[in-house]
Amino acid sequence: MADFVEVTSALDRWEDWCSAWSARAAVHERLGREALASGHGLTAGELLTTAAVCYHFAKFLFVSDLDQQRAAHRRAVDCHTEALSRLDPPGERVEIPYQGTLLAGVLRRPPGVGRPPVMLMIPGLDSAKEEFTTNQAPFLARGIATLAVDGPGQGEAEYDLPIRGDYEVPVTAACDWLEDRDDLDTGRIGLWGVSLGGYYAPRAAAFEPRVRACLALGGPYTFADSWDQVPSLTREAFRVRSHLETDEQAREHAATLSLEGVAERITCPLFVVFGKQDRLIPYQAAERLAAEASGPTTLLLVPDGGHIANNRPYVYRSQSADWMAEQLAPTGPDAVAARG
Amino acid sequence: MADFVEVTSALDRWEDWCSAWSARAAVHERLGREALASGHGLTAGELLTTAAVCYHFAKFLFVSDLDQQRAAHRRAVDCHTEALSRLDPPGERVEIPYQGTLLAGVLRRPPGVGRPPVMLMIPGLDSAKEEFTTNQAPFLARGIATLAVDGPGQGEAEYDLPIRGDYEVPVTAACDWLEDRDDLDTGRIGLWGVSLGGYYAPRAAAFEPRVRACLALGGPYTFADSWDQVPSLTREAFRVRSHLETDEQAREHAATLSLEGVAERITCPLFVVFGKQDRLIPYQAAERLAAEASGPTTLLLVPDGGHIANNRPYVYRSQSADWMAEQLAPTGPDAVAARG
Repeated sequence: MADFVEVTSALDRWEDWCSAWSARAAVHERLGREALASGHGLTAGELLTTAAVCYHFAKFLFVSDLDQQRAAHRRAVDCHTEALSRLDPPGERVEIPYQGTLLAGVLRRPPGVGRPPVMLMIPGLDSAKEEFTTNQAPFLARGIATLAVDGPGQGEAEYDLPIRGDYEVPVTAACDWLEDRDDLDTGRIGLWGVSLGGYYAPRAAAFEPRVRACLALGGPYTFADSWDQVPSLTREAFRVRSHLETDEQAREHAATLSLEGVAERITCPLFVVFGKQDRLIPYQAAERLAAEASGPTTLLLVPDGGHIANNRPYVYRSQSADWMAEQLAPTGPDAVAARG
Repeated sequence: MADFVEVTSALDRWEDWCSAWSARAAVHERLGREALASGHGLTAGELLTTAAVCYHFAKFLFVSDLDQQRAAHRRAVDCHTEALSRLDPPGERVEIPYQGTLLAGVLRRPPGVGRPPVMLMIPGLDSAKEEFTTNQAPFLARGIATLAVDGPGQGEAEYDLPIRGDYEVPVTAACDWLEDRDDLDTGRIGLWGVSLGGYYAPRAAAFEPRVRACLALGGPYTFADSWDQVPSLTREAFRVRSHLETDEQAREHAATLSLEGVAERITCPLFVVFGKQDRLIPYQAAERLAAEASGPTTLLLVPDGGHIANNRPYVYRSQSADWMAEQLAPTGPDAVAARG
């Protein structure tokens, strides 16, 4: 993305990060609003989606100036929300009851499928539901609905709800909410998580029996193991998103994000993707998770892949969507009959 | 695209260009064939499409070793052809009668549209139909079928047919061929051309009355004006693709690619996109074309855009597809009735 190179290479100081990304976001937003005004919905949807991603980058890790951060975040949410009805397929903003408050999510349904299976998408540290339009495409193309949610410590929830290691709690809330949707087959729920979400997803799969398959991308086994390795900016964001005062408290809290004694409880099919050159999280995290999980498990270690193997999307992006589609395929007498 | 940075930055000598790109292409091809073997058509289609683009890069301008070049080209065509039926929407390989031989093309139809309009896509210098899957998406999404063709001097035609300045001849052949398709509305034919194709398209629009709208991206007014400015590699490719012996002959031939006395004959709607920072072709080419064309003309000069404004796709890519969709919208009593 030309934007990324241009915006980041023009930056001299971290203090300008949020304003530089917000300025670039505003370019996309302006073009998006022009398209809206001239009645070009598809174009508007695409541009406002990009604007939202740039505003999200603007607020990402920018915990040193929370007013600026929050202003950028608000624009990210607004632009993404405005884009939703213009996407192909369209998205729908939803709110999931959770411990007396609501978690915001985005639901997209594949076209032409009556009651599709649904995959819950879990963001990472300081990551949010606005980032995932591109990630949704291969699943939607394979007949799987997607539900991206801002969980505790993430996106819209980060102000009121701190990061929690037992992420099965919000996942269970999402599964409860899904049960009431009669346009989704809630007997077929998948889970997808990226970066720190690559920890949250298997963690939740260990405890929530309604999860039928889990895709974990680039997550730690326990966040404490990576603590000294991740940039100080990341540690600081973790502290702020955990609503804690000191580094020491943050380090202790990081230790509660752990699959120790938990991974073995995972019995559903599990697909783990990890870049062996990841400099944030040691790849042994993926090996240990795969070794301890009790269900059918696939480990894809990408030899020349960095964090989340983002530099090698072609070795896993579509392939993992194929895997998920197979796990969530209809089963039982009806399905057998339908498949001849 | 990570591939581009990695492959080109690892190159020390031009002589290794073709083999380096072919090696990267082979990675995508192997993954594509794995997906084919396991019955994952969508994934295979995507990977083989990327493989074809990489093989195309491998042969691009590589006129110094025609055996190597031709081997890479054959893989590009084969991979793309194998991908076609697996794309969404699928593509179809077609052959267009032209002066006793055939021009190869790729036709894709938008889903759910009975008789869509169709847009002919014209490649540039040493460019070919295998490159355009991404470019097709916004038009297909707006209900326009796309027909990408290797014309004289391009892709599959380059061995037997030299570059010709009067590109209206192959465009007329394509329009004739289209008349026989009853699954396309050949009363609504658009034209799209990129780089040198940004010259070919308006050139053909000036002479072929069946062209209802023309989109010209980053093309010269006359190729002679850019001759001393383009890299020697480009001039050499032009010489070889023109089937000429000497630089001097090539320069003279370049002068026959001209809109002089021609641009004024363009009466259909014309949309010209040009990057003002283009270092290959002076932006005055676009200004002159827009000034001389006789029909309704829009000129989009992108102030910070390079060649074809490739670094600013968001200012024109979807917007120009919206424009084309409006030009090719159904008209007449039926359409008025249908639109209420």
